[in-house]
Amino acid sequence: MTEPGRLWGLGVGPGDPELITVKALRLLRQASVVAYLVAKGKKGNAFSIVEAHLRADQVMVPLVFPVTSESLPPPLCYETEIARFYDEAAAEVARHLDDGRDVAVICEGDPFFYGSFMYLYDRLGQHYETEVVPGVSSIVACASVLGAPLAYRNQSLVVLSALLPEAELAQRLSAADAAAIMKLGAHFAKARRVVVALGLGALYVERATMPGQRTLALADVDPATVPYFAMILVPGRKWQA
Amino acid sequence: MTEPGRLWGLGVGPGDPELITVKALRLLRQASVVAYLVAKGKKGNAFSIVEAHLRADQVMVPLVFPVTSESLPPPLCYETEIARFYDEAAAEVARHLDDGRDVAVICEGDPFFYGSFMYLYDRLGQHYETEVVPGVSSIVACASVLGAPLAYRNQSLVVLSALLPEAELAQRLSAADAAAIMKLGAHFAKARRVVVALGLGALYVERATMPGQRTLALADVDPATVPYFAMILVPGRKWQA
Repeated sequence: MTEPGRLWGLGVGPGDPELITVKALRLLRQASVVAYLVAKGKKGNAFSIVEAHLRADQVMVPLVFPVTSESLPPPLCYETEIARFYDEAAAEVARHLDDGRDVAVICEGDPFFYGSFMYLYDRLGQHYETEVVPGVSSIVACASVLGAPLAYRNQSLVVLSALLPEAELAQRLSAADAAAIMKLGAHFAKARRVVVALGLGALYVERATMPGQRTLALADVDPATVPYFAMILVPGRKWQA
Repeated sequence: MTEPGRLWGLGVGPGDPELITVKALRLLRQASVVAYLVAKGKKGNAFSIVEAHLRADQVMVPLVFPVTSESLPPPLCYETEIARFYDEAAAEVARHLDDGRDVAVICEGDPFFYGSFMYLYDRLGQHYETEVVPGVSSIVACASVLGAPLAYRNQSLVVLSALLPEAELAQRLSAADAAAIMKLGAHFAKARRVVVALGLGALYVERATMPGQRTLALADVDPATVPYFAMILVPGRKWQA
């Protein structure tokens, strides 16, 4: 019987290919199979990050999302479609593992921090020898690009999705010493309204460390142009040590 | 006139020397001077992480904290002592920069996420060409070691210091979908009380990815043995996609 392969969830960092860790790079090169989640018709950010490091003899397994929006026309249901997709994606990865091939699933940022890898991990992690290699998350990448120390001493940091309802965003932000609002995209205008209403000193960056990186004043952002990979940071008040 | 050197704040990751990024490693090797903050009589975690990568001709500049506790006998005052220390440390780094030497300040985890580097950055960042290289933070390292996906979809994550008062910890934790409690050390018993009272499914790890890494059930932890580098994680509820 073939010894099953190992499953590696590799954080490849926020965008700059040099922000991959030495460990993730080593396992990436060692893997027989490189799998990644990707939108239909796209190359994929994680793939772009590691492209230069791949070997010609590695098997590429793109796992292509069947839907790009959470709002589907009835009778389709996002939760059902996406659960079926992850079942199939996990089965595809499992076939390689069962055949004895080590599979690296590459994940932009960190695998366990809002990463799609988590849904593969929840399906496969208990059945195969699995290792997760943490990566540089977009939050600290944005802080470095903005030159903004994020949290001092005993300040609390709150990480929020811009998809939250406006009142909830406001309530959670008002309780935070420092905050990051992720997944802006079409939800930018709402998030900016909340930040401005609370009088918070907020910073904006899109595509941090990726090609096309851009920082601008919050007031100058055109909501129509905001990508998914954009973030509002509210740095903690400087401690004057 | 000598061209001033460049200041690099390098995140060197949570402990495992392989969890440094390719970029931080490149700049580390390129720097003439390697500076790091360290407690008196200690080698320093950041130094231990990068030790194997250093060149013999690099100048090491340990910046040694004058105090190890925030509670000092009167008339001493922690804020005053530590501010003076950072002034002097910044001046020491500045002398190397003024002499044209590039200085890498190595920082465990990420430089802008509860890092002492922030106090050097606040003093020097506007006066010298400065670059901050983000690193893998202890939070995602702990999640990977615990095999615990941290935050799904639109869940909010709250990062808290265990030094906060018990009532504030409880209030902030009860509002979170997912949470990390850092800086446990002598404050572990209080943090555990709060987590248990709220009925949260929490996990514990100490020295994640460092030598001496240990995970154990929260109930089994002896508060007398908890190090500063220990964390309680409250992972977000699994999303069943």
